Amino acid sequence: MFLRNSWYPAAWANEIQDGLLARRIIDEPIVLYRLTDGEPVALIDRCPHRFAPLSKGCKVGDHIRCGYHGLTFDSSGRCIDNPFGKGETPEAAIVPALPAVDRYGLVWIWPGDPNKADPAEIPDLSVIVHPGLEQFFENYIHVRSDYRLAIDNLMDLSHAAFLHEETLAPFTPDLQSGQFRVSRNDGRIKASIEMKNVELGQGALQDQWLETEWSAPGVIVLTLAQAEAGQPPANEAVRALHLITPETERTCHYFFGSAVDGRGALVRDPFVDEDEPMLAACQERMGDKDFWDLHPVILQNDAAAIQVRRQLEKMIRSEQPV
Amino acid sequence: MFLRNSWYPAAWANEIQDGLLARRIIDEPIVLYRLTDGEPVALIDRCPHRFAPLSKGCKVGDHIRCGYHGLTFDSSGRCIDNPFGKGETPEAAIVPALPAVDRYGLVWIWPGDPNKADPAEIPDLSVIVHPGLEQFFENYIHVRSDYRLAIDNLMDLSHAAFLHEETLAPFTPDLQSGQFRVSRNDGRIKASIEMKNVELGQGALQDQWLETEWSAPGVIVLTLAQAEAGQPPANEAVRALHLITPETERTCHYFFGSAVDGRGALVRDPFVDEDEPMLAACQERMGDKDFWDLHPVILQNDAAAIQVRRQLEKMIRSEQPV
Amino acid sequence: MFLRNSWYPAAWANEIQDGLLARRIIDEPIVLYRLTDGEPVALIDRCPHRFAPLSKGCKVGDHIRCGYHGLTFDSSGRCIDNPFGKGETPEAAIVPALPAVDRYGLVWIWPGDPNKADPAEIPDLSVIVHPGLEQFFENYIHVRSDYRLAIDNLMDLSHAAFLHEETLAPFTPDLQSGQFRVSRNDGRIKASIEMKNVELGQGALQDQWLETEWSAPGVIVLTLAQAEAGQPPANEAVRALHLITPETERTCHYFFGSAVDGRGALVRDPFVDEDEPMLAACQERMGDKDFWDLHPVILQNDAAAIQVRRQLEKMIRSEQPV
Repeated sequence: MFLRNSWYPAAWANEIQDGLLARRIIDEPIVLYRLTDGEPVALIDRCPHRFAPLSKGCKVGDHIRCGYHGLTFDSSGRCIDNPFGKGETPEAAIVPALPAVDRYGLVWIWPGDPNKADPAEIPDLSVIVHPGLEQFFENYIHVRSDYRLAIDNLMDLSHAAFLHEETLAPFTPDLQSGQFRVSRNDGRIKASIEMKNVELGQGALQDQWLETEWSAPGVIVLTLAQAEAGQPPANEAVRALHLITPETERTCHYFFGSAVDGRGALVRDPFVDEDEPMLAACQERMGDKDFWDLHPVILQNDAAAIQVRRQLEKMIRSEQPV
Repeated sequence: MFLRNSWYPAAWANEIQDGLLARRIIDEPIVLYRLTDGEPVALIDRCPHRFAPLSKGCKVGDHIRCGYHGLTFDSSGRCIDNPFGKGETPEAAIVPALPAVDRYGLVWIWPGDPNKADPAEIPDLSVIVHPGLEQFFENYIHVRSDYRLAIDNLMDLSHAAFLHEETLAPFTPDLQSGQFRVSRNDGRIKASIEMKNVELGQGALQDQWLETEWSAPGVIVLTLAQAEAGQPPANEAVRALHLITPETERTCHYFFGSAVDGRGALVRDPFVDEDEPMLAACQERMGDKDFWDLHPVILQNDAAAIQVRRQLEKMIRSEQPV
Repeated sequence: MFLRNSWYPAAWANEIQDGLLARRIIDEPIVLYRLTDGEPVALIDRCPHRFAPLSKGCKVGDHIRCGYHGLTFDSSGRCIDNPFGKGETPEAAIVPALPAVDRYGLVWIWPGDPNKADPAEIPDLSVIVHPGLEQFFENYIHVRSDYRLAIDNLMDLSHAAFLHEETLAPFTPDLQSGQFRVSRNDGRIKASIEMKNVELGQGALQDQWLETEWSAPGVIVLTLAQAEAGQPPANEAVRALHLITPETERTCHYFFGSAVDGRGALVRDPFVDEDEPMLAACQERMGDKDFWDLHPVILQNDAAAIQVRRQLEKMIRSEQPV
């Protein structure tokens, strides 16, 4: 059971250009495309006639035509052309449409009640994606685990010391003596690790702050800030977006991006070679069992991950009929 | 749930020669072979002792010997030799046999009550497969969809204008202005498309008639007839057999054949490259859901397909115990 | 449902050296390693924190450290180090440990009640694996069938005449006229085939005895003895270990070994090329159905196999709560 009334990152804006993009999100098949004026459109990717994926069809101006029998739908999902017979387009020939908007270099979709979809509720990511941005490096990974395992991974960065021992750990060598804190702010949950007097080979000792701040459903901003020991953090923190969107019950989409390139801490390889296989292995060990039914041990350092899980559960529960 | 009391095309006659052919039909494993006099035999492809596929054994004259422990069965499925111990062949050592006959270049099997199996009920295909036939081109495709989706495909040929836009559509360029009709005759259901005054680049305008006639369970004769505009259809219509036999709940066998070769309309590629992937995609979108539970939109041009579905449902229901 | 209170061969002793070996047994993920003094350790291969396979971590002295967040466990499964926060190791952070012992060149594990684990109950295999052994050839095959089908295969060697017609059958050419017997001794079940006056091209006619003796759960000693016709069997019988350990409901591990090499009767190929594919095919034909629900025909020559099945069922039933 997934949260429905929420803005899900569905694709990097650049992924949707002239064509049709098929992507499964919260176990619904979605087709994404753009109107001629550039506005994004999201429809359920299944023709109501014989269930062909509309993504196997083609765009006709602002409309989408099924590639099987030629039914054509407008961007609201209404059938506007049946090329056969008397051209009747039955009332029932409707494809559900999902609100979709461009923001922060991504297309976001709202799979819940369209009347509740307010783009103002998209989390503010302007700290990392803003007009003055010179460059932004976008990545996508398909992850073979439940999205919550992938969120856990980000909300408990202690794993870097072990899973990324050879790759990312050298950037925060004192992670193990760091102080873990959780804070909440208006639905957002932030995990912070403060590391004091770290020897980074830069002459003076440094203080480091490593943070991940989550917003529903799986929008996470990672920040690594630094300063000379005893000073407040410098402005030029390293920041990265980590966006987790459920694909199915046991797989998810992982979008990540940063303005910073060429630093081991932010490149693709550790996610592909270390995180993804570990998440897939944890999922395999969970099988079809529920997380709580497996009686997970809860550690101090995954308090934020657990709070995120509880928050998601609460939000999902609140959507269910009484 | 499949129709059982029906003749299913199981193989092209040529597929069964000296050896043993294993093929799953209506989700039953079947082994097919021929007696020394050429008569076809169909048995459940599972030894009653330890469940080895008999098709992994060998023929011994008119009998079939299991390749695991050597139990030998006659063509009625009776165990006639146990090579060990005192050679006892327990009464229970019986492999169910299915009535099987050669007709129209195919081997047909009857998975229902053998007492009801009457070869006279095999649909008359002599219009297309007859003694004077000089050549006949046989094809087989394994289709990753429920057999009814494959029958729908054939009973609503309007799809040619879109799915086969580049391959088959040019043979019937006015398909979209055609008139769709359905007719029934003694259990058979025929979909007809009449196209008038078609410009085919042959000088005079032509009339065209495109028909598919279904008989249970999935036997379809396709006819494309043609004539100068206003004249009755010429005799030399193009005809093709399209036979759909369920393999499992989500896959089927597609046998097709025609006396005509070298015409795009009847060659293998459009079925392999266009129909099969589309059928598989529709099936994937249906998942495990029932067709009707998905509330399909019904169009004028798939009236025949819907009638076939209703007819099959009625026949299957009539077989169930009250 | 598997027998739990039993010693299962889990690995050849040589498979576990410096590293961590992951192996699924009776559908439980197990990680195997050795203490610095060489003692084998078996733990459930799943960290209680976020379910990472411990086998993806590393050994630290006598301990095992999870590769995800660094929790470290001793060989009893108790968490002895949490590298983060205040280093708390919650009481609940326990990995179930399984009794494990080295014997006869194998590591045996006991997945049942540890209090009932008595290594003295490991079947006596000293007739084949003993101190004076000059060499021993070890093999492993992964089998795509339920373990009981693999045991059936060994308890009814009549199959050699057919399945191994070209490979093993020539060593016992009169198998079909052999006399099959079953005997029981203290929980063990022995299938014997006595073949008299066999022409083996060795001058005098020979008598042969082919036996497989089973102990729970799937420990089988195969013996091929021989003598001049009318004489008692010579001492230098050919013996081989055949050990079947369930992996999942539909797959098993097959360990086999012998002091004899270079004889077709005991080499790897017939098991890989003939037995395994046949067992997988039988399993495929069984699908998810229960053996008895398929009403298997019982032949005289598989009396021992059936007795083993009955014995296993009785033992499993006796473990269930009343």
